[in-house]
Amino acid sequence: MNQDYIVPNAWSIIEEGFNPSTLTASESIFSIGNGAMGQRANFEEKYSGNTFQGSYIAGIYYPDKTRVGWWKNGYPEYFAKVLNAPNWIGINIKINGEELDLNNCKVSEFKRELNMKEGWLQRTFIAELKNGVEVKVNSLRFLSLRFNEIGAVKYRITPLNAGAEIEFSPYIDAGIKNEDANYDELFWKILETVAEDNQAFIVSKTLKTEFQVATGMRISFEKNQQEILLPYIKKIEAKKITFTYQSSVQQNEEITICKLGSYVQSMNHEIKELVNHNISLFKVINSIGFQQLLEFQKEDWTKIWKTSDIVIEGDLKAQQAIRFNIFQLNQTYSGEDTRLNIGPKGFTGEKYGGSTYWDTEAYCIPFFMSTKDKSVARNLLKYRFNHLEKAIENAEKLGFKNGAALYPMVTMNGEECHNEWEITFEEIHRNGAIIYAIYNYLNYTNDLEYVAEYGLEVMIGVARFWHQRANFSVEKNKYVILGVTGPNEYENNVNNNFYTNYLAQWCIEYAVKNLKKVKKKFPEDYKRIIDKTNLEETEVSAWLQVAELMYFPYSQKHNVYLQQGGFLDKDIIPVDQLPKEERPINQKWSWDRILRSCYIKQADVLQGIYFFENKFSTDEIIRHFDFYEPITVHESSLSPCVHAILAAKINKMDKAYEMYLRTARLDLDDYNNEVHEGLHITSMAGTWLSIVQGFGGMRTFKKKLTFNPQIPKEWKSYSFKINYNGIVLKIYKNQDITSFFNETGTPVTIEVYGKSYELVNELTL
Amino acid sequence: MNQDYIVPNAWSIIEEGFNPSTLTASESIFSIGNGAMGQRANFEEKYSGNTFQGSYIAGIYYPDKTRVGWWKNGYPEYFAKVLNAPNWIGINIKINGEELDLNNCKVSEFKRELNMKEGWLQRTFIAELKNGVEVKVNSLRFLSLRFNEIGAVKYRITPLNAGAEIEFSPYIDAGIKNEDANYDELFWKILETVAEDNQAFIVSKTLKTEFQVATGMRISFEKNQQEILLPYIKKIEAKKITFTYQSSVQQNEEITICKLGSYVQSMNHEIKELVNHNISLFKVINSIGFQQLLEFQKEDWTKIWKTSDIVIEGDLKAQQAIRFNIFQLNQTYSGEDTRLNIGPKGFTGEKYGGSTYWDTEAYCIPFFMSTKDKSVARNLLKYRFNHLEKAIENAEKLGFKNGAALYPMVTMNGEECHNEWEITFEEIHRNGAIIYAIYNYLNYTNDLEYVAEYGLEVMIGVARFWHQRANFSVEKNKYVILGVTGPNEYENNVNNNFYTNYLAQWCIEYAVKNLKKVKKKFPEDYKRIIDKTNLEETEVSAWLQVAELMYFPYSQKHNVYLQQGGFLDKDIIPVDQLPKEERPINQKWSWDRILRSCYIKQADVLQGIYFFENKFSTDEIIRHFDFYEPITVHESSLSPCVHAILAAKINKMDKAYEMYLRTARLDLDDYNNEVHEGLHITSMAGTWLSIVQGFGGMRTFKKKLTFNPQIPKEWKSYSFKINYNGIVLKIYKNQDITSFFNETGTPVTIEVYGKSYELVNELTL
Repeated sequence: MNQDYIVPNAWSIIEEGFNPSTLTASESIFSIGNGAMGQRANFEEKYSGNTFQGSYIAGIYYPDKTRVGWWKNGYPEYFAKVLNAPNWIGINIKINGEELDLNNCKVSEFKRELNMKEGWLQRTFIAELKNGVEVKVNSLRFLSLRFNEIGAVKYRITPLNAGAEIEFSPYIDAGIKNEDANYDELFWKILETVAEDNQAFIVSKTLKTEFQVATGMRISFEKNQQEILLPYIKKIEAKKITFTYQSSVQQNEEITICKLGSYVQSMNHEIKELVNHNISLFKVINSIGFQQLLEFQKEDWTKIWKTSDIVIEGDLKAQQAIRFNIFQLNQTYSGEDTRLNIGPKGFTGEKYGGSTYWDTEAYCIPFFMSTKDKSVARNLLKYRFNHLEKAIENAEKLGFKNGAALYPMVTMNGEECHNEWEITFEEIHRNGAIIYAIYNYLNYTNDLEYVAEYGLEVMIGVARFWHQRANFSVEKNKYVILGVTGPNEYENNVNNNFYTNYLAQWCIEYAVKNLKKVKKKFPEDYKRIIDKTNLEETEVSAWLQVAELMYFPYSQKHNVYLQQGGFLDKDIIPVDQLPKEERPINQKWSWDRILRSCYIKQADVLQGIYFFENKFSTDEIIRHFDFYEPITVHESSLSPCVHAILAAKINKMDKAYEMYLRTARLDLDDYNNEVHEGLHITSMAGTWLSIVQGFGGMRTFKKKLTFNPQIPKEWKSYSFKINYNGIVLKIYKNQDITSFFNETGTPVTIEVYGKSYELVNELTL
Repeated sequence: MNQDYIVPNAWSIIEEGFNPSTLTASESIFSIGNGAMGQRANFEEKYSGNTFQGSYIAGIYYPDKTRVGWWKNGYPEYFAKVLNAPNWIGINIKINGEELDLNNCKVSEFKRELNMKEGWLQRTFIAELKNGVEVKVNSLRFLSLRFNEIGAVKYRITPLNAGAEIEFSPYIDAGIKNEDANYDELFWKILETVAEDNQAFIVSKTLKTEFQVATGMRISFEKNQQEILLPYIKKIEAKKITFTYQSSVQQNEEITICKLGSYVQSMNHEIKELVNHNISLFKVINSIGFQQLLEFQKEDWTKIWKTSDIVIEGDLKAQQAIRFNIFQLNQTYSGEDTRLNIGPKGFTGEKYGGSTYWDTEAYCIPFFMSTKDKSVARNLLKYRFNHLEKAIENAEKLGFKNGAALYPMVTMNGEECHNEWEITFEEIHRNGAIIYAIYNYLNYTNDLEYVAEYGLEVMIGVARFWHQRANFSVEKNKYVILGVTGPNEYENNVNNNFYTNYLAQWCIEYAVKNLKKVKKKFPEDYKRIIDKTNLEETEVSAWLQVAELMYFPYSQKHNVYLQQGGFLDKDIIPVDQLPKEERPINQKWSWDRILRSCYIKQADVLQGIYFFENKFSTDEIIRHFDFYEPITVHESSLSPCVHAILAAKINKMDKAYEMYLRTARLDLDDYNNEVHEGLHITSMAGTWLSIVQGFGGMRTFKKKLTFNPQIPKEWKSYSFKINYNGIVLKIYKNQDITSFFNETGTPVTIEVYGKSYELVNELTL
């Protein structure tokens, strides 16, 4: 744990006291978002200390020129980056001519609260300026879920020790940069500035990708809860518009600046309508008013929590953490727009660029599937269907033919934008996760229409890839898959990674199974797809031969599948025998040393066993867990959750709880000393999985909803909710009993501890 | 072959006709150098067309900031680059006010000649300017071997169709850039400019490395072979000094500008003396005169050719090519300075940065050893001895201990400056080549003093490295070396590369053997070294255990050592079955496809067999050659020579000749369409090896000089010379006879076709 300053609270994230050294960390932790945009918790007023400014708009990216030491054939030309977007939160303040800047005054009673129940961020403090004036400030900010192009700030100042002349300079600023730009270039071009009627707009365009955004602000004032009008001076610079207002404020009198901010962008509107739409939007919001907008926000968050809350009794920090994770996932992705996805840092930082990794399919889809309407998971699947053509092009670049599809490692628009050969070209197991997500979705929803309409084509492209990617080894008399990187990225360019080979085999078999199903149940779709893909029976037979003769490295001695061929040539020494000062190894060891060591970054063989748990006996799971977990360093945020789930499965609740602790407060307590770069959004879904699939033992294999709830001895009770195809269930577990509540009332069959029940209202065991 | 414009000639490289499209290629091919500096064959006068300007000073480099996509722990911070140095060759010319620029006038009778016998570059042409004046130009340039800080240009102009006003603007320019700078930065800072008495100097300093160089010029004129004095105007800019002279020249009258150029630098002089030394130097050279300086040049090249020439009868292009290779090697490295080495592009381009690769030990040392005094090879060995401490530091960075040494993949000063993990950290076989070079040198010279004085410490550091780098595989009950890249860089991060394991084993055994020898013959050195290295007998025993139990992958079925573990899992399809349009694969295939293919970039198992040919039976060599050569794509310039030598060894003279052809005119005919980037200097040594060790069958295993000459059926005869520890031998071979001449007269024992002879004067078989 690197920090411990977040005040434990069931529904809020709270920081008390002003600490510049953790300011950038707090900027990440207190980030707000509404699925369409998000912001780091930067101050509205000027701050001259160390800060990492960030505002982001979903779907808007820039293809930054790649930076590589040695170009490899096949690398993409660019690396798509989440773009820092024009800033609309800024409000500079002068008190009697002196800038309000927390870096230059005496700050007391500083407090931030991110209210997760209602979806708003508040900051209060008292500042004593160098000129002696003491002011109390309260700033309340949120990004509307209901009007997702809009955010609002209410910024209140009260002079405490004397009346004061207060100058407000709200602005919008499109002169922003990405901290991680490869060549320090600017990514935005300014097209138009408009300033009238207390409103201002800057229309700017991203270079190359040519997204257009009208960034807007609308300013109003209140004194004593009454709207007041103040005259203002406009300052229009090339990339920035500032309005300046002056007001004399009495001692203990409160003056409030209300600032609406907006992004209206070309993914959703005609380019020529951006400013007009923005003006209309402000009119509507203005008629609704700040208070009502905030009420809507509370209502909308209440709805979200209704189907997704987890309650933990007896551990306030765990309670806070799990809600934080659920909250941030919902801030990042709202599920309506098939062009969007879940970036590893969401709207909280720039790192990792691109939006979509296999994290979405492996970790996030189960979360959204179980806490939202099923259309949300379906949209995430459609995102990949919409990228199928690009995935086929991507495979062609690497020499594959005939409609084989390789989904990119990292993408914004379907094109690969990662450039590290051992990952980009070789971490191909990602292609399997995309099919696994369809399988997972089908188990949950039984929505075979999705397969007929979209999924089958994806399955065919991926099966073709695996068929072509394997080759026959005369030596082994088996098909092998050479030169891959598994989920454990601490091995590169290995042969016959068990997880990859297993997924490859499964993808082929699953595609063939679904071909048969669709042929039978949706013959017209079947015909359409066969025509489109030119799929012939001989090709399918060739696929099946690869699947049938797939090679899996196995150790008779240890009775386990080997992570890859030759794994046992390594020195195998448990992690707990490594000197503490050599960890984390990714910071202490050179890359070659990591590669030739036995140490595992994140679940690899165990990832496969987690995905296909129903195909392995409990004994097999125990053997593999006992072989691999002790040599796993969990240096990926995606590692502990899988281990927590499997540990719970094999009744190692202490291990499961230990693993759970490593994931739950990863960001709140900044375990890896990197939270200032942004939050680990996708791994937050893993924390949710640790509770629901881990402690709760929820599974949906073979379209059956089963539970096997256990509880860590450290907790009094926990409960979680899921939305099972429209039926809201609550599962409660304490040290004595296990209860199930059907909040919708539509009967549903569940299996608990191996026995089947019809759940209408309540079931207690 | 990409071009065919070089006129065949036994002693010169000749180009006739002006062709802007091959101008940058010619700039490489006609490069001149003297071991201390070198220049691409850029024009003296302004050229507004496409040109790649380059002047280089031996030993002067810049640590450019690395550019990597994803930082890996252990990467060096910088990439040392050969620096483009201030330009002193420039002489801008105006004729009646119009710039002489071959890009803007009508050029006829254009001819270049690089005279290899005498070491000078000449260019002649007639230019018709837009203003109608026609001039004949003759420029002669060389870099003095005897005064290696000096170069000279004689630039003659004759107006042909009328008298003309000619303006000469010779200059020195330190405002130069590297084309391959990672971030487009400038690497030089200007410290001082001096201009007086027809002389000018700019003292400049490299940033970070702080080398200082005084770049100088000295100008004089001749008319009708008489020195004349012309008044001039000085123009001193921040980074450039230009003198401007005017002269009226009659029709058919010749005016000559003589320009001396110089680099006087801080590796060889006190910083405060740079300009003074330069002034004295110009005084000396001036008193010698251009003509005499040129005579010295001819004398010095005659000496070089005396011990290194190869004569080929019946194939003029082959004759030209082999002399070109010998000439360029001598231009690059002269052998006196242990701080210098042989860069892959010498002084002909920027690519690859750094100066020293394992090319030096594997390919260049045999050439210099056999054509020069033995001190030259000794100096190349000492270069590595001098870097031992840095090699130990380098190994420490990667986690090795106790004085283990890992020599860098690429270096200028002993520090690693390559950053591609699969090479930097894993292509560790380079460490073995350094020991192999000592072994090779000892076989040739029997200079055990070198081992006692310097070599043994290097052997200990390297043996320690291999001992620590191997690990014991319980599974195999052998020591294994995991995660390496062999000489065949089309495989990365493989396990148990045969070549690497073999070298590792051999290095240990050879170190132990030499420990014993030194102990016996140089007990004081032994004691000094044991004390310094803290070497204990238990450690040596531990080394030997690794050597004894080293694992070598072997196929019983094919009866060959495998390039690496698992090699036979690949699809093995001979290169000649690959479609032509898919080659070279490094331009057509993505990296992963190359990696998982069976195709070999350059000799790997065969490199080992070449190095240790005496340890393998001819049958074994044949089996390995027949297994590996057909799947070798020879996409490294260092590949064909090893195959030519082994093919000759096993009596496949057609194959040997085919391989020879791929290396001999690589640059002259621009096989890889890249000669514009510079010449392949180190692979030129491979061409020499193809003749001397390949066709000539020269070997020095076990300190015995043996020959087995054969001749390609395409040739009438060939002969080569070697300097065998001071004895100059000439070997002549035609289709009928084989003759040996001892040009020194000191008797020497040689073995020819398996029989021993005492060679005093001549021997014909």
